[in-house]
Amino acid sequence: MNHTYAVIMAGGGGTRLWPISRREHPKHVLPLIGMRTLFQNTLDRLAGFISPEHIFIVTTAEQEQVLKSQVPEIPAVNYLVEPAPRGTASVVGLAATILLKRDPDAVMIVLPSDHFIRNIDQFHSVMRIAMQVADKGYLVTLGITPTFPATGYGYIQRGNDLAEKFDYPVYRMAQFTEKPDEAKARAMLASGDYSWNSGMFVWRADCILDEFSRQMPDLKAALDRIGETWGNPEQGTCLKSEWLPIKSETIDYGIMEHAHNAAVLPAGGLEWSDVGSWDSLFEVLVPDGDGNVVINGVHLSFDTHNSLVYSAGKKLVVTIGVDDLILVDTEDALLVCRRGQTQEVRMIIEHLKNSNREEYL
Amino acid sequence: MNHTYAVIMAGGGGTRLWPISRREHPKHVLPLIGMRTLFQNTLDRLAGFISPEHIFIVTTAEQEQVLKSQVPEIPAVNYLVEPAPRGTASVVGLAATILLKRDPDAVMIVLPSDHFIRNIDQFHSVMRIAMQVADKGYLVTLGITPTFPATGYGYIQRGNDLAEKFDYPVYRMAQFTEKPDEAKARAMLASGDYSWNSGMFVWRADCILDEFSRQMPDLKAALDRIGETWGNPEQGTCLKSEWLPIKSETIDYGIMEHAHNAAVLPAGGLEWSDVGSWDSLFEVLVPDGDGNVVINGVHLSFDTHNSLVYSAGKKLVVTIGVDDLILVDTEDALLVCRRGQTQEVRMIIEHLKNSNREEYL
Repeated sequence: MNHTYAVIMAGGGGTRLWPISRREHPKHVLPLIGMRTLFQNTLDRLAGFISPEHIFIVTTAEQEQVLKSQVPEIPAVNYLVEPAPRGTASVVGLAATILLKRDPDAVMIVLPSDHFIRNIDQFHSVMRIAMQVADKGYLVTLGITPTFPATGYGYIQRGNDLAEKFDYPVYRMAQFTEKPDEAKARAMLASGDYSWNSGMFVWRADCILDEFSRQMPDLKAALDRIGETWGNPEQGTCLKSEWLPIKSETIDYGIMEHAHNAAVLPAGGLEWSDVGSWDSLFEVLVPDGDGNVVINGVHLSFDTHNSLVYSAGKKLVVTIGVDDLILVDTEDALLVCRRGQTQEVRMIIEHLKNSNREEYL
Repeated sequence: MNHTYAVIMAGGGGTRLWPISRREHPKHVLPLIGMRTLFQNTLDRLAGFISPEHIFIVTTAEQEQVLKSQVPEIPAVNYLVEPAPRGTASVVGLAATILLKRDPDAVMIVLPSDHFIRNIDQFHSVMRIAMQVADKGYLVTLGITPTFPATGYGYIQRGNDLAEKFDYPVYRMAQFTEKPDEAKARAMLASGDYSWNSGMFVWRADCILDEFSRQMPDLKAALDRIGETWGNPEQGTCLKSEWLPIKSETIDYGIMEHAHNAAVLPAGGLEWSDVGSWDSLFEVLVPDGDGNVVINGVHLSFDTHNSLVYSAGKKLVVTIGVDDLILVDTEDALLVCRRGQTQEVRMIIEHLKNSNREEYL
């Protein structure tokens, strides 16, 4: 595993867990599940699997310090700081460019920093297979075996079995479907042909950069110029001047959707969640006998069921006659949301932006 | 009206509006309805009707200062400070004793400090009649014409019409019924024979003290000894030594239930509430088009109906998909209660007492 590197994408500013997730304290730096943050969990998951020197963090200047304080074992030089957010395509391209300079045989494991996986052994097993597949030149997306007709995830249809045989079935990628409606989600679930797009990828750095050359040549040219100055005194100036004009694009649409040799490795049993909404925490945390989940705070519950309580600080939260409710209390904002409607939090964020209440974001 | 005095009972520590109502900040000192507190509202209601020199406040040492700061126009000497809470019978007896010393023809209007009345003109009209009736020697309870089968109020059955005729029908009191179950409440409402016990009384000081002599002679003797030293240097010592042994009793059970000459003056149209629970605030405050009531705080509401929001401070409260819910947020406690279940707040108080969390009371 000397040529294996992990690239953690930790620059996002997700607001779907508002009001605790804020611009300056996005989801992955918060201790949502247990005592450690999702970002720390992501690194913990690699312990004994990839050494800290082989782990790279791509983030923003605003988040760099808090991330470094949370995971001091990663060398400072392994932090790649985006001058501005330009989507996951540029993040992956930058990491690949820098890794390829360092190691022509580099294999990259690309991981989001804000997901949850309960079954770490299974994660390691799947990653080992993915690395074998990537070594043969495939661009591997880790697919999650769907467990319900989710409308909040992207779906990947599997195509033919790969020609090479591995210890585990791996398929060519047939097509992407972004967040379907419920009917379509049910049909895809029933067909058995689809996996959720986990946002976890494994590939050789040279292979993914070949696809950048083919599909995003302008970005590849910018990355090449950045790569030339990397480690030189001009590194910062060049990165900034090349980066800012980049058009924002995701790796999924910019590269994977039309990539040659794109493969999907369907993985069940990871007990994965993207922790993409307050509702999703019910998939991740273990409720008490009344179906309630208390993340923080002291909860006094009477006739209360299937509800979630998060209280920053030591506030006493009393609920009486409450069902299917999500309560999130912070110093300056309180969210009370019916279970199943937490995707509407996006609407709140839009409303706050439009009404100039940036202090709540 | 030279012989008319108001006695405001402002010593209670009601906890039914927890978590905003606390031992040190009970309900009547809080601005629940508009900018002024219920205590201030009670005094405002007497403006132009009874002069400040004729208004007496009975309270506790803990509350004396905050009350004085809220209503500076009442002379300090008109504050009667209970050495310890001993129920409304002793409060009324003390006030009557002191008033009678000052004015042998004193007529007392006894008023709770924590009720709401929207129709002040009607309140004045009813009080004028009550004073005429009291002047004839009757002990008058103001009855509220029931508007729904409340289970949280006491009921008074009316007896025969009084022999004297007034501008308005007044009845002998037949009997008291404390907080009935719902079936009984429905029957009483349907019969048309019952009024709610408002806790507002009007009587001559000498008449009520005659009833103390007859029904509570021990208390009357203690009150007489207090009266003898009142205004002398021994006043404080005597009050304390006589007061502490008093057995706690309400004026309703101690005196009114078996009083001779007890009368009830049924009054409709006051738009009265005892503000005795969070639910009761829906009777008092005017909801918006979605049925929501916001007492304090900034409320962003999406798909939210028939709910109440109270937030101490400037917290942003966001509700999504919420119906029939009461949300009360304070610095150290958050209450979320289904509408119709706010009487259960009493249970919370008991629980907090029993679990040694006095800091929340």
